[in-house]
Amino acid sequence: MGILLDPDQHFMREALREARQAYDEGEIPVGAVIVCDDTIIARAHNQTERLADVTAHAEMLAFTAAAEHLGAKYLTGCTLYVTLEPCPMCAGASAWTQISRIVYGAADPKRGFATLGNAILHPRTTVTAGIMADECAQLVKDFFKQKRG
Amino acid sequence: MGILLDPDQHFMREALREARQAYDEGEIPVGAVIVCDDTIIARAHNQTERLADVTAHAEMLAFTAAAEHLGAKYLTGCTLYVTLEPCPMCAGASAWTQISRIVYGAADPKRGFATLGNAILHPRTTVTAGIMADECAQLVKDFFKQKRG
Repeated sequence: MGILLDPDQHFMREALREARQAYDEGEIPVGAVIVCDDTIIARAHNQTERLADVTAHAEMLAFTAAAEHLGAKYLTGCTLYVTLEPCPMCAGASAWTQISRIVYGAADPKRGFATLGNAILHPRTTVTAGIMADECAQLVKDFFKQKRG
Repeated sequence: MGILLDPDQHFMREALREARQAYDEGEIPVGAVIVCDDTIIARAHNQTERLADVTAHAEMLAFTAAAEHLGAKYLTGCTLYVTLEPCPMCAGASAWTQISRIVYGAADPKRGFATLGNAILHPRTTVTAGIMADECAQLVKDFFKQKRG
C-alpha cells in the first residue's frame, strides 16, 4: 500500500520535478505547476537563460500555458504550486489571472513579493507558504554553490 | 521649419501610436516603446484579448522584444515609454530588465505600481511621470466609454 501524500505535497513534488529540470539545463532551479480540479493543467520551469528573457520565470510561463489550456483568460478555481516564493512580477501577474490560491515552497526574503506586502495579489487569492520548503531551497543553494564552485 | 519636440514627447507620441493601434483592435489602449541611443528598438501594444493572455501587457511584450533585438538580457541604458503607469507586474518585470528609465503618460491610481511604492523598481531605475498625460488618459477613457455606450 502506498503512503497517501498530502495533495499540497504531491503537487509541490511535481513543481520540484520541474525545478530539477531547470537545474539540469543550467537555469536557476524554480519550477511551477498549475492545478485545476486536482489535475495539472500546466507545468513550467524557469527559462530565463534559454530564452535570454529575464521575464521567463516558471510562473509566467505556467500562467500563459494554463490560460491557453483552459481557453480562458482567468484562472479562478486554479492553484499555482511554485518551489520559490514568487517575485513581484509574478505576483502581479497572478493578480491579473485572478488565480484562487498560491502555494509556494521556499521563501525568498530578498526578492519575494511578500517584501511588498500582500496588496500586490488579487484580493481573493489565498497563500500557503513553506510546503517542502527545505527541498525547494536546497536545490537553489546547490545551484549557486555549483555555479561558484 | 518644424517645431523641435522634446525627446520625451516625441517618444511618447510613438507610444501613443501603439496605444491607438490597440484601441483599433478592441484592446485596452496602452502602448509602449523602448528607446536605446535615441532609437526605438521595440514597440508594442496591449494584446491581452487577442492572445487571451492577461499578462500580455504592452510593457511585457516590449521588454521581450527589446531583449531579443539587443541579444542581451538586460536593458541597462534603455528607456521605456508607456502611455499608462505600469502595473506591479510590469514594474516588477522592469526591475529584472534593469532598465535605466521609465517615462509614463497617464497615472493609474487604482492599478499602477506606485500604489505599492517605488521599492518594486530596480534601485537604479528613474521615473518620469505625466508626459502627455491628457492624451494618454483620454484614449483609455474613450475606449471604456465606447465599450459601455
